[in-house]
Amino acid sequence: MTLPIETPAVLVDLDIARRNVEGFQAYADRHGIRVRPHIKTHKLPQMAELQLEAGAIGITCQKVSEAEAMVDASARIKDVLITYNILGEAKLARLAKLNARVSLSVVADNATVIDGMSDYFAGAQEPLTVLVECNTGADRCGVATPEEAAPLARRIAEAPGLKFGGLMTYPPVGGAARVQSFMSEAKRLIESDGLEVPTITSGGTPNMMQAAEAPIATEYRPGTYIYNDRSLVARGVAAWDDCALTVLATVVSVPASNRAIIDAGSKVLTSDLLGLTGYGHVLGHDDIRIDQLSEEHGRLVSDEPIGLKVGDLVRVVPNHACVVTNMVDAVHIIEGGEPKAEWTVVARGRVL
Amino acid sequence: MTLPIETPAVLVDLDIARRNVEGFQAYADRHGIRVRPHIKTHKLPQMAELQLEAGAIGITCQKVSEAEAMVDASARIKDVLITYNILGEAKLARLAKLNARVSLSVVADNATVIDGMSDYFAGAQEPLTVLVECNTGADRCGVATPEEAAPLARRIAEAPGLKFGGLMTYPPVGGAARVQSFMSEAKRLIESDGLEVPTITSGGTPNMMQAAEAPIATEYRPGTYIYNDRSLVARGVAAWDDCALTVLATVVSVPASNRAIIDAGSKVLTSDLLGLTGYGHVLGHDDIRIDQLSEEHGRLVSDEPIGLKVGDLVRVVPNHACVVTNMVDAVHIIEGGEPKAEWTVVARGRVL
Repeated sequence: MTLPIETPAVLVDLDIARRNVEGFQAYADRHGIRVRPHIKTHKLPQMAELQLEAGAIGITCQKVSEAEAMVDASARIKDVLITYNILGEAKLARLAKLNARVSLSVVADNATVIDGMSDYFAGAQEPLTVLVECNTGADRCGVATPEEAAPLARRIAEAPGLKFGGLMTYPPVGGAARVQSFMSEAKRLIESDGLEVPTITSGGTPNMMQAAEAPIATEYRPGTYIYNDRSLVARGVAAWDDCALTVLATVVSVPASNRAIIDAGSKVLTSDLLGLTGYGHVLGHDDIRIDQLSEEHGRLVSDEPIGLKVGDLVRVVPNHACVVTNMVDAVHIIEGGEPKAEWTVVARGRVL
Repeated sequence: MTLPIETPAVLVDLDIARRNVEGFQAYADRHGIRVRPHIKTHKLPQMAELQLEAGAIGITCQKVSEAEAMVDASARIKDVLITYNILGEAKLARLAKLNARVSLSVVADNATVIDGMSDYFAGAQEPLTVLVECNTGADRCGVATPEEAAPLARRIAEAPGLKFGGLMTYPPVGGAARVQSFMSEAKRLIESDGLEVPTITSGGTPNMMQAAEAPIATEYRPGTYIYNDRSLVARGVAAWDDCALTVLATVVSVPASNRAIIDAGSKVLTSDLLGLTGYGHVLGHDDIRIDQLSEEHGRLVSDEPIGLKVGDLVRVVPNHACVVTNMVDAVHIIEGGEPKAEWTVVARGRVL
């Protein structure tokens, strides 16, 4: 690869990304599961379009501002689910504008959020579709039991300006059985209350090839699968060759025989560990550990002589691809092994 | 405090920042130490100007692009030290332009970097000032011994286009004695070789009130001291009232009696632990731990009922202030307890 690219830089191999997207889409198609990728991993309209072309029915975003950035950047994004409890007039106003532009849905796990949305959307032209978020073991957001999901579904269905859209969960790794049992019971309760449950949506890349083990779910939201990362290689669900995102860095110092310093620190690789030891994998150097990051320095150590000299380039597979995307204004796109373009990360830093 | 601020948001209390800056400047003035703050903590020209007004002699940056952003944004920044090994023609070209605009110095810890800079600057109008980086125990960059520092000083002094500027180190916590012994010996060796050592610069906020214990150093580069953070409170060198930077967040879910979810995750607070447990301190809620972050969610847990409801605002002191600054396009400035302005973080994301 010829690389006239200044380091540190985030590289994305488009061929690998395309293969990853098509691989899961084929699995989902075989099992009749709709795919709604989470754009948090790439934050790029071009990648969302690639996912839609492969067969995705829409996209998932986590924040209103992220959805705005994606919709503004691509006319082909017409269906967006924001998997977040949205509160406050300023955000609801932005939500209403989005709702007039695309097929939009959001989630809620409590009455305060539902009532706030209803107050705002009661006078709106288009009702807002709201799914109930369910906790199937990740213990983040979500109602704890099917018995709590049912009355929230009823509350949404009766709220002026809102429309009940179904059930959403982000399960823990290995959570397919729990998704199946929770969602089956919640669906039964809601239907026995006279409501339809149009969509049941689950997600998570580590579990995605077991998505069919929770056949109650109609839709799946993988995120990291498009790029993969060291955490997914460690889990055995991807190989290094499946990792589309890497960080290109230069060795700036070799101050000891078994230590080298690269020009990528936590401002590129981030401090995300995801349960791992060390901050990334140096491709082609299995003996090397990245044992410490400061903001602009990555420290590489080995039990052997490190085998790197000042000026050498290395490529690092980060622990967590999604957060690396968020650290840079643009990524370098590699196609056919060569740098092809620089794409602005339009949804970077959108936390509102 | 009235807060018409959308969450999550990074707040910076200007009164506290000013007090922190003046506090260390007074200490340094008493001990005859020149202050050259590291701008990595704030990445704001306005804060650099505040530091210069208080008595700082210039600023420290970590990367060329960071220095460019600061110099472009403030005509009052006229003296910049970049504490980094700089390699490659593209970065050297940018360095040369900067060197024509301000009093600039950089560091090197190896011959490859020195020779690369000399090749580029040999034909330049202005020589580039280069300090030798020394490892006084942090085991990042830097020559390992005074005996290695001396020949590098000689190499710089003899290199066309370069000028030897002195010695630089970033010591570990509690490293003052090692700074004193290493630098004294390095200075002795370099002077006995017939060279002057104009500057000896050390740094680090945790150590700053022991700066005078290494009187060989002429200059000190504190960074985090302007804002402080949870890591410095944990070290006993700051109190919560000294923390100028906080993250304002909204409780979006209380899915269990002892668990609440806020709208600030690792995209604002970052995963930096700095040896701590948990991801920040919720002001006024000593019983609460932030035990888990995903990108857009922070999980708050307590052994007691959590005492928060959906819609509540909380303020979080992050583990590490510098990295939080880097996550947002702008910070909200608080003065006299009220929001006064929004300042663009002009040096955010400058990793080149």
